[in-house]
Amino acid sequence: MSDSEDFLKIANAGRSAAAGLAPLPRAAKDTALYAVADALVERAAEIVEANARDVEAARQGGTPETMIDRLRLDVPRIESIARAVREVAELPDPVGEVVRGSTLPNGLELRQLRVPLGVVGIIYEGRPNVTVDAAALCLKSGNAVLLRGSSSAYESNTVLVRVMQEALAGTEVPAEAVQLVPGTTRDSVKHLMRARGLVDVLIPRGGASLINSVVEESTVPVIETGVGNCHVYVDAHADLELALEILVNAKVQRPSVCNSAETFLVHAAVADEFVPMALARLAREGVTVHGDERVAAYSGEGSGGAPGAGVSVVAATKEDFRQEYLSLDIAAAVVGSLEEAVEHIRRYGSGHTDAIVTRSQKAARRFVSLVDSAAVAVNASTRFTDGGEFGFGAEIGISTQKLHARGPMGLPELTSTKWVYTGEGHMRTSTGTVIATGSGDMG
Amino acid sequence: MSDSEDFLKIANAGRSAAAGLAPLPRAAKDTALYAVADALVERAAEIVEANARDVEAARQGGTPETMIDRLRLDVPRIESIARAVREVAELPDPVGEVVRGSTLPNGLELRQLRVPLGVVGIIYEGRPNVTVDAAALCLKSGNAVLLRGSSSAYESNTVLVRVMQEALAGTEVPAEAVQLVPGTTRDSVKHLMRARGLVDVLIPRGGASLINSVVEESTVPVIETGVGNCHVYVDAHADLELALEILVNAKVQRPSVCNSAETFLVHAAVADEFVPMALARLAREGVTVHGDERVAAYSGEGSGGAPGAGVSVVAATKEDFRQEYLSLDIAAAVVGSLEEAVEHIRRYGSGHTDAIVTRSQKAARRFVSLVDSAAVAVNASTRFTDGGEFGFGAEIGISTQKLHARGPMGLPELTSTKWVYTGEGHMRTSTGTVIATGSGDMG
Repeated sequence: MSDSEDFLKIANAGRSAAAGLAPLPRAAKDTALYAVADALVERAAEIVEANARDVEAARQGGTPETMIDRLRLDVPRIESIARAVREVAELPDPVGEVVRGSTLPNGLELRQLRVPLGVVGIIYEGRPNVTVDAAALCLKSGNAVLLRGSSSAYESNTVLVRVMQEALAGTEVPAEAVQLVPGTTRDSVKHLMRARGLVDVLIPRGGASLINSVVEESTVPVIETGVGNCHVYVDAHADLELALEILVNAKVQRPSVCNSAETFLVHAAVADEFVPMALARLAREGVTVHGDERVAAYSGEGSGGAPGAGVSVVAATKEDFRQEYLSLDIAAAVVGSLEEAVEHIRRYGSGHTDAIVTRSQKAARRFVSLVDSAAVAVNASTRFTDGGEFGFGAEIGISTQKLHARGPMGLPELTSTKWVYTGEGHMRTSTGTVIATGSGDMG
Repeated sequence: MSDSEDFLKIANAGRSAAAGLAPLPRAAKDTALYAVADALVERAAEIVEANARDVEAARQGGTPETMIDRLRLDVPRIESIARAVREVAELPDPVGEVVRGSTLPNGLELRQLRVPLGVVGIIYEGRPNVTVDAAALCLKSGNAVLLRGSSSAYESNTVLVRVMQEALAGTEVPAEAVQLVPGTTRDSVKHLMRARGLVDVLIPRGGASLINSVVEESTVPVIETGVGNCHVYVDAHADLELALEILVNAKVQRPSVCNSAETFLVHAAVADEFVPMALARLAREGVTVHGDERVAAYSGEGSGGAPGAGVSVVAATKEDFRQEYLSLDIAAAVVGSLEEAVEHIRRYGSGHTDAIVTRSQKAARRFVSLVDSAAVAVNASTRFTDGGEFGFGAEIGISTQKLHARGPMGLPELTSTKWVYTGEGHMRTSTGTVIATGSGDMG
């Protein structure tokens, strides 16, 4: 069979599985999730063995040790993956929730119900635990899933999916509700992207280049996730000590994640005081500052005995302001006003999370109103934009687009809705509703 | 200037206008809408004059009279368009609504607010009244709009947009919040479809071929609207008189709209009784039935003195079951079970509205659960799937896709959301939240 026939086969199997899965009640889905969790633990040795082949291949290929650590599975890690599946089972079922409802003036009973999306495609570069996480979230929300993970984890993912499918085979959930897209080449991604009508939504999880290529080429609707160029704006009315703590937390606490800060902007009125403080402190924290000219002016010899003196600042290019560093680097600029900060964020930001530090209610209100991002933080670190922190219990990613879902995506964001209206012979005429008379009641 | 430069100019102007419009309170937007309504009435003569040029050109081009009637504007029609604008002004403002909110365990105050999408592109084939309708709905929901109407209405649309812009110029709403995409060629549609980053969403309103080409080519997220291949399923437990009235209403009351029925399916257990009744009645209503073999068996001479006898049935092809006739035609098939009806709807339907007529609670429940469409009607005509009927007050279209909006789209469907969280120095650590201490309160 060709690659493309292989893909069509699994996509069609996914559609059938989705149709079987959608009407299942919560209990059936939870039972299946517990069976998956148990199977992962029971068959951990098998998974570790397959994973060892991926690890060996990566090592042969010269992959750095930090990346290999992300790839590696051992028994404790598999137990933790299984625990996460059980936690998903314990979350409320979004399917069937009545989102809105009313009895219309003509007596029709109208309800808007949450329903699964159908078949969800996930394209990811991450660790093999994403394979299980994503599958669990899709199952719980009544969706079939087609998984296209990193080719470097193909052996691990193959076994993980086989273990999940074999666990599902003993439950009411169709085994084909979880499938791995066959193949490790870019073609297998292409098939997913062109599977309009077979796949209901694609969620790419990874770097900006993966996401951009999916958006560009996909005819399946896409939910963009995860690129975060987050800003901390230190307002003229900021408590500067508080601002410094928030800035350092947003940058340093976990630099590799999308909700960490990549740029800070300082109002000119407090720049003389704040910038030297920030340069000195960030230098101590090991952070390289990529500053505009006004920031750079506070470093070096010119600034004499100020706290930032002697701390080197890399001259920032426009590209630096666009960058998602994911490292101990941060861009910095001085702005003339709150509006200029907003303009900077509009131009260079990724629409993820932007924070203001201020004591002024008016400034906070204005910043919240003008900044057009998935999340706006006031006197808080950008690091709180997270499904877990928001109380969702689980997260499939953080959407940085405006349609369907924006910000952290939990289980409800993996659903659509369906309108249901019930009458007793309701018909529409040019003058209003007429009710047909028939011969009998519901039996 | 080239076409593409022209487009970039209006797209950038639209983005700036959107930024200015988004934070405006309801009063400012309503004032602007009333100004638009007044201007349309005051300048009706100018609009009628421009419209006459479109009508003349259409007539020269041999456009049929029914199409010309759809294009024509006169003073009463303009007054009715203005009235619709005032009705939109009277609707509640979706922007600023708190969709969800809570105080997190760490004390962060979390709110999810409704915000405008930004710049909305509308591609439509319809009458020139859509130009004003769509603009009013976008303004009310805080969005700037780029309108790409039918080239046959270009003169009318140009003047309508000019009148609206000049009315806005005296208000707080930026005049460039409403713009016509320049040009009448397909290139102008292409520019819209490739304007990712400048346009936030595209809503094509028109036939299936327009919508498919937009979905195929657009890198801007698309909301599909309006293609309706709606089904009426007559269950084994149906009240057949009621079923017949509902079927006739769904087909005949207004055949040219997307929520009219295009196929009916009859359970085999009641086919002997229902199909002849339906054929006879539909023939009297002037409807041509495109039936499968089992339906055809009830027509013609074979069926002797039955009510459907002698009524001709066109043999249905697979394509007939896929068709959105929008005319006095309907496809028909006999099915062996409710599940077979569902399977038929899955295969041939467009996911718009599908109805079941039944007295059985169990059958109704099962149909509602299995049919994966934007709306499912129980003992009611498909014609009720409509923003006006649902109580939305206005409708930008009926979405037949699953992401973002499904079914009739009112003002809230023209918005996105933004998360806002407010703390007092909240920072995230590996063990939980820590609150930085600063030197002062909000001033």
